[in-house]
Amino acid sequence: MVLSRPEDYISRLKMRAKNFNIYAMGEKIDDPLEHPTTKPVIEVLKKTYELALMPEYKGILTAEGLNNDKINRFVHVERSPEDLIKRVKSQRIVSFHVGNCNYRCTGHDGINALYAVTYEIDSELNTNYHKRFIEFLKNVQKEDLVVVTAMTDVKGNRSKRPAELKDSNSLSYIHIVEERNDGIVISGAKMHVSGAALADEILVVSTRSLTDDEKEFAVAVAIKPDFKGVYFISGWNSYDSLMKTSKDLGTDIDYPTPFGHRNTFMIIFDNVFVPKDRVFLSGETKYAEKLVEYFVAHHRAAGAGCKAAFADVILGASALAAEVNGVFNARYIQDRLLEIKRHGEATYATGIAAMALGWRHPSGVYMPNYKLANIAKLEAITHLKEAIVIASEMGGGIVVNAPSATDLKGPVGEKVSMAIKANEKYSPEERLKVMRLLSLWTAGPHLVGLVQGGGPPATQLLALKRTLKEELPDIIENARKLIDMKR
Amino acid sequence: MVLSRPEDYISRLKMRAKNFNIYAMGEKIDDPLEHPTTKPVIEVLKKTYELALMPEYKGILTAEGLNNDKINRFVHVERSPEDLIKRVKSQRIVSFHVGNCNYRCTGHDGINALYAVTYEIDSELNTNYHKRFIEFLKNVQKEDLVVVTAMTDVKGNRSKRPAELKDSNSLSYIHIVEERNDGIVISGAKMHVSGAALADEILVVSTRSLTDDEKEFAVAVAIKPDFKGVYFISGWNSYDSLMKTSKDLGTDIDYPTPFGHRNTFMIIFDNVFVPKDRVFLSGETKYAEKLVEYFVAHHRAAGAGCKAAFADVILGASALAAEVNGVFNARYIQDRLLEIKRHGEATYATGIAAMALGWRHPSGVYMPNYKLANIAKLEAITHLKEAIVIASEMGGGIVVNAPSATDLKGPVGEKVSMAIKANEKYSPEERLKVMRLLSLWTAGPHLVGLVQGGGPPATQLLALKRTLKEELPDIIENARKLIDMKR
Amino acid sequence: MVLSRPEDYISRLKMRAKNFNIYAMGEKIDDPLEHPTTKPVIEVLKKTYELALMPEYKGILTAEGLNNDKINRFVHVERSPEDLIKRVKSQRIVSFHVGNCNYRCTGHDGINALYAVTYEIDSELNTNYHKRFIEFLKNVQKEDLVVVTAMTDVKGNRSKRPAELKDSNSLSYIHIVEERNDGIVISGAKMHVSGAALADEILVVSTRSLTDDEKEFAVAVAIKPDFKGVYFISGWNSYDSLMKTSKDLGTDIDYPTPFGHRNTFMIIFDNVFVPKDRVFLSGETKYAEKLVEYFVAHHRAAGAGCKAAFADVILGASALAAEVNGVFNARYIQDRLLEIKRHGEATYATGIAAMALGWRHPSGVYMPNYKLANIAKLEAITHLKEAIVIASEMGGGIVVNAPSATDLKGPVGEKVSMAIKANEKYSPEERLKVMRLLSLWTAGPHLVGLVQGGGPPATQLLALKRTLKEELPDIIENARKLIDMKR
Amino acid sequence: MVLSRPEDYISRLKMRAKNFNIYAMGEKIDDPLEHPTTKPVIEVLKKTYELALMPEYKGILTAEGLNNDKINRFVHVERSPEDLIKRVKSQRIVSFHVGNCNYRCTGHDGINALYAVTYEIDSELNTNYHKRFIEFLKNVQKEDLVVVTAMTDVKGNRSKRPAELKDSNSLSYIHIVEERNDGIVISGAKMHVSGAALADEILVVSTRSLTDDEKEFAVAVAIKPDFKGVYFISGWNSYDSLMKTSKDLGTDIDYPTPFGHRNTFMIIFDNVFVPKDRVFLSGETKYAEKLVEYFVAHHRAAGAGCKAAFADVILGASALAAEVNGVFNARYIQDRLLEIKRHGEATYATGIAAMALGWRHPSGVYMPNYKLANIAKLEAITHLKEAIVIASEMGGGIVVNAPSATDLKGPVGEKVSMAIKANEKYSPEERLKVMRLLSLWTAGPHLVGLVQGGGPPATQLLALKRTLKEELPDIIENARKLIDMKR
Repeated sequence: MVLSRPEDYISRLKMRAKNFNIYAMGEKIDDPLEHPTTKPVIEVLKKTYELALMPEYKGILTAEGLNNDKINRFVHVERSPEDLIKRVKSQRIVSFHVGNCNYRCTGHDGINALYAVTYEIDSELNTNYHKRFIEFLKNVQKEDLVVVTAMTDVKGNRSKRPAELKDSNSLSYIHIVEERNDGIVISGAKMHVSGAALADEILVVSTRSLTDDEKEFAVAVAIKPDFKGVYFISGWNSYDSLMKTSKDLGTDIDYPTPFGHRNTFMIIFDNVFVPKDRVFLSGETKYAEKLVEYFVAHHRAAGAGCKAAFADVILGASALAAEVNGVFNARYIQDRLLEIKRHGEATYATGIAAMALGWRHPSGVYMPNYKLANIAKLEAITHLKEAIVIASEMGGGIVVNAPSATDLKGPVGEKVSMAIKANEKYSPEERLKVMRLLSLWTAGPHLVGLVQGGGPPATQLLALKRTLKEELPDIIENARKLIDMKR
Repeated sequence: MVLSRPEDYISRLKMRAKNFNIYAMGEKIDDPLEHPTTKPVIEVLKKTYELALMPEYKGILTAEGLNNDKINRFVHVERSPEDLIKRVKSQRIVSFHVGNCNYRCTGHDGINALYAVTYEIDSELNTNYHKRFIEFLKNVQKEDLVVVTAMTDVKGNRSKRPAELKDSNSLSYIHIVEERNDGIVISGAKMHVSGAALADEILVVSTRSLTDDEKEFAVAVAIKPDFKGVYFISGWNSYDSLMKTSKDLGTDIDYPTPFGHRNTFMIIFDNVFVPKDRVFLSGETKYAEKLVEYFVAHHRAAGAGCKAAFADVILGASALAAEVNGVFNARYIQDRLLEIKRHGEATYATGIAAMALGWRHPSGVYMPNYKLANIAKLEAITHLKEAIVIASEMGGGIVVNAPSATDLKGPVGEKVSMAIKANEKYSPEERLKVMRLLSLWTAGPHLVGLVQGGGPPATQLLALKRTLKEELPDIIENARKLIDMKR
Repeated sequence: MVLSRPEDYISRLKMRAKNFNIYAMGEKIDDPLEHPTTKPVIEVLKKTYELALMPEYKGILTAEGLNNDKINRFVHVERSPEDLIKRVKSQRIVSFHVGNCNYRCTGHDGINALYAVTYEIDSELNTNYHKRFIEFLKNVQKEDLVVVTAMTDVKGNRSKRPAELKDSNSLSYIHIVEERNDGIVISGAKMHVSGAALADEILVVSTRSLTDDEKEFAVAVAIKPDFKGVYFISGWNSYDSLMKTSKDLGTDIDYPTPFGHRNTFMIIFDNVFVPKDRVFLSGETKYAEKLVEYFVAHHRAAGAGCKAAFADVILGASALAAEVNGVFNARYIQDRLLEIKRHGEATYATGIAAMALGWRHPSGVYMPNYKLANIAKLEAITHLKEAIVIASEMGGGIVVNAPSATDLKGPVGEKVSMAIKANEKYSPEERLKVMRLLSLWTAGPHLVGLVQGGGPPATQLLALKRTLKEELPDIIENARKLIDMKR
Repeated sequence: MVLSRPEDYISRLKMRAKNFNIYAMGEKIDDPLEHPTTKPVIEVLKKTYELALMPEYKGILTAEGLNNDKINRFVHVERSPEDLIKRVKSQRIVSFHVGNCNYRCTGHDGINALYAVTYEIDSELNTNYHKRFIEFLKNVQKEDLVVVTAMTDVKGNRSKRPAELKDSNSLSYIHIVEERNDGIVISGAKMHVSGAALADEILVVSTRSLTDDEKEFAVAVAIKPDFKGVYFISGWNSYDSLMKTSKDLGTDIDYPTPFGHRNTFMIIFDNVFVPKDRVFLSGETKYAEKLVEYFVAHHRAAGAGCKAAFADVILGASALAAEVNGVFNARYIQDRLLEIKRHGEATYATGIAAMALGWRHPSGVYMPNYKLANIAKLEAITHLKEAIVIASEMGGGIVVNAPSATDLKGPVGEKVSMAIKANEKYSPEERLKVMRLLSLWTAGPHLVGLVQGGGPPATQLLALKRTLKEELPDIIENARKLIDMKR
């Protein structure tokens, strides 16, 4: 058994901390273990370890690793449709308990994609990426490391190819600056990397299909966050601001959950040297698109699990809001709560289906059904947005109009407290906390996250257009047959 | 191997035909093999045998039966989640090829429900229904019989209990009129039984939860359509009428598919004697609700397969309509066709998920996940209705405004033919046929069938309300934990 | 006061009847006053006269005509936003009472469009079309004639221009075959012309924008249905079939409303001579597009009135179905009925708005707001489709699965009657009638009619794309200003 | 002409400022003219004066007042359907220019409601509230004052009547504490009052229907924000926090618009004395419900104007985001932008319709159509939520994941700037500003505001349920008639 404990993760983090280059709000973060921007990420990651140790989640949050050890599913190479289904379940469990991104799913998906792609390259080109990757992975599994994948390049002007941009903007796409005997040097910048700076390992991979002459942009490597030349810049949205000011004001009521909301980093790679044993793709342009395809298949399918968890968190917050308002038993409320549930389960179902119809890659890893994985992402938007809108009704205007918790203690605090009180079973502070939890989902960054996570809808539609192209001739032929129309 | 051939089915049908009491349009049907109302049902049923014999569908349309023979999946007791998933796939395959109801799915679902319920009764009450049912089923599997389930009672005044209605309306609910040593005598009437009169066997089962003193209404039996006292009255909607008048007018262009649209029967049971070996529930009120629950779990989950098939048929007809109109390649059209596909696959996914998360009943039969089966039905409506609306745009107004095909041959036939012609690659007759195929889906009984099949949405919502009641406390508790709100 | 009575219309119709060339089901219709295809149209038209004579609709169904007489609004040239709003109200009233297309709205819209366009041509080209049209119109108003507009050409291969098609398919687009001193000769074919053969006057107009060298296709004339060379071929859909077979079977229960469903004709013009005083556009290609634009603005905006009426008819039928089923008071039912209402009123609102923001054309006629007229059409689809889906739940499966009414009198009629009976206050015949009314809306041609009427959604989106193009720069500029981003 | 200039408003504000009791974040606001919470409200209010002075908005933003002066429409008593339509237009204009709540609409709606209700009371009870209110209003019009209405009580436990709550929670509902010869003394607390503290006048009115014995809760008065015993507590949501921290950090890029987002106040009334000439309802319980009904009719109908403006702002921000990303011309983007427009115009239409069908109150004021006003609110949610979801795709993940603008100047600022750059025509700062504007609409308080503003959907549905109850009998009767079913 090689499951880590939260404290193991913390030990590793502490060891690295001094070398970090993490920035937020224009300043370097000195102590990521305590900084309001990074601490919630750490809380979530600790929880991922705690949950995996709980007996009730055995076999779901855990799996059997390359060395037949019991490992955390987050670092598992999935081996069957049953495995894939458990993957969705595990997402739902973890995201439910933290009410937030679990920060380890991109790592899982990157591992599974690289496992397959390195196998393909080796099979065709006689390279030894796969073996190398397995060595890397064995260590990851043994140590139960937090892995994240840095996928999205910052891209620069979207109407130009990577090579066109390189001179004017050397960060647009990750690329190989130099090939050495002992490794490669890369530069570029990635965005939207959830929790990146707090990971043990970061898989840095190409984000798009490439032409033969774009070899320098075909790259997949593993780095550690404290590698030289790596800079993290935290996103800074209104909820980051609220989180910080709440701390500054000495109250945790205005931002009541320790796990925070999704934190992401931009990562800048400034001539970062990566030793050979951490290089898993290097110039083989042909495989870049496959890598993305495998990654998004996993990510979009498994995403249904965390979206279903989010729906349950939204449902719980909505129900609690109705309760503290004193209207929980109203028929209208009950009907709306049921609707939230419906949306969550419908989302969940599409993810499960993509997994149940997964396929065996020659390397042995199982891939979710590509078509249904894309459907799952689109359905997640369709349903969760409605859950969010319903939740926007459940709490009342107080969800966005509540005074600061500091006003409960301010010069007119007594009056404010009385005005805030609704259901007598709950204190004004409790009512505010509930409303803040609800506001995170209805008036925060989650809607955009829902739409953009795993790629915007346009990319899923494009994927489906491709699958339709293959299927349409048979579908038309069948229609012809039904009316005996020969051609 | 015990798969039947279409001709075996026909032979059996012919033997029974003389004893039939089938009515349509106020008249008795003398020759069901040729009558326009019943013939399309027979065409579909023949196709179910043909398809099961095709090697490419082996293991999907077929399964391993009680005697370890290779049997048709329509008479199979499902034994694993993989089996259940194949069930959805089989629905999609068959319904795709006939562009219509396959007429055998209610039989499958009734078999699987009775298998479980008879096991439960025997376990608790020391009866021998299960053994009896297995004997019955072995024969069904050996002969590859067409089984349908007659579930929905005509109900009469919905605000009264069965017993209250019995005196004034003895047909409202199926019930036991007399118990004899050698069997029971039943009366009542069932509706919405797809293809019933053309089946080999009909499972007649209670349709609702019952109280202890409603024993006479707790019943499950198998009858043959030519049993004495059994009367079938065919539904008669506008498409039945169009089908008939097209035949009368000597053209099959106005109703171009030989497989028809969903045909259903009302069945009247007038003191029908059922021998003991065909009685599988008789007075055990407690199990009536379970029976319905197991049946609808199967039916609503598997229904996603046929709805996905319908979406593909709608897509094929829409694409063909665009093609004969000469606009197939227009970007707007392509975008809409993709939307139809999306809706079909999203529906499919929910059915697959309900199956993938199915559970093992103590009897060994697998049941779909009840919650997701209900979600699957609701999602089928949500998505297929949109597919139908999109399809309503794809053909143009001609879908409902086309002249009769007889006008192509009438006094001004030449002019009409010229006026109908669009894309020169297709004859006016071909254009009309395509539009008629599309009209069946956009201007016919399928929308109501979609909404009502497997029970109206109100029943699914009720089912979900029950599941939510169990889950909500934990969901609320989790929300409390997230904000550290103790109770 | 120049309002006609129903009998005046009938007199005119009888005089024309002997010269008619009307076909249905491959045969010539000898007596349109009694034929099941045409009679319902006549019933509707009679009702339009009856209603206009009712005091409670004075000033709404009536207006002040060119000669300051009190005329029917269907032949009125609208003179103010108030007039336009009354136009929507009048649509709602009439369509509500007949539960169907009123068959006179295209005439109104053609009159208003031609009024404007002839004015423009005369102003610019010194022609006298406008004067000519006013003479024609004065007579129409004086006699309170039924006018319809034949707009949609059959088009042939949609990827070719009219001129390209002419040789191979002389019916594709209406066109001038010969110009004589006393008039013009036209050929071509129109489709989707609701009620055409039963009108007093038919406005035949070009259906698309034309280039300078397509003069022969620029045409607007008025013909009478008994002009030489004019042929009508009735559409023949499943409800036409049901209507006919119901009559044949001697029952009106299966098709219970005397007003029928929307009937449309294809009209073939085979070298039809049109005298000069009936020619309102003849070769002035530039104005063809304007004509269409004015027509659709009126048609799409006013359509909201009849769609709202349809929603009320759907609501009434749904409520009645719930009542005969015995579940009218159930909360779930009441909630759904409210939803139908919401959809109807939301549709109505968009039509009212398009009218309220109408604009004065230099000729004095008022035009609905073009942008909102297109919105109104799109919203009508969005909302009415939902009303139809809800209605599909309200009646139950019996809506499409009911036996024929003849079965109530057939060999097992007594049993069938008992089985059909639900709420004891209603006879089996009454229950069937209600279900048939509901089926017309949920399982009939209305959904396609909803989508296609006034042009398919693609055409409205195109119109909106044009209006957006004009507005977007200002909208972007405003966004720039909000963030002080200079350009 | 009595239109104020922005500086007049500022002068008045300055005079009052010293007496204010305004709190935010637990502290008293000393200088509301400069405080980050209140300054944006002031910027908006100044803009309302500026715009009204612009010649292009004459007659729309202005109207003719009680003294036949040209006044600001925000203080106008509407006198015709045309007036009402201009009201929606004026909302659209102002909210478009400020990209936010205009803070004066509740005042308008309160004025129009009180004008009618005071007239009714006087007519029936021989009081002189109406005369008194007109005197008050004349001054408001003459000075062009900023009026807001404080409607929503904090309510306390929603399952109890006001009187039940009074002892335990004296703030739940506004109520009369004492009646004096020269006026009344009131206590209670209001929430969700947009911009309240910055107004010149606040109308404080009862928020619900009342029974005969709840006289003390029937109240309508005008107060000034600096009345003794009045306390304002500003809402404090994540965007308030972001706005503040941006100022603190010395950058306006992270919160780029000077007009802010909707600011609301809780107002606590602690034994506030209101002189007689400012009391417009005092104990007449019967009229409390009417007052609310008139207010919401105006508010929900006019709200469509500001929601349409919001849609345009969202559209502008989305288009700009696509432009700075370099993908503006992509077909997919153009299609989505058109969808945003559709949703905005559909919303607008329902508001216009509610106004066009407005009715004349006996007092002379025009009231929007109640049914359509409620429809307008519901449609606003239906459409705007979709616009927000589409907008969530248009900018990309950077909308919520962007680093703080301070990071552009921080230790790795140069690299961050390069990484942020996309379309070369725009600087990194500009790209960030655009994304922040978009984030305000997709990841901020506006969605909840949309749902809750003018009351949550439950209240609109209740209103519609009442109107349906009146209409349904006729609708059912009509359905009966259509099938000749007598009763």
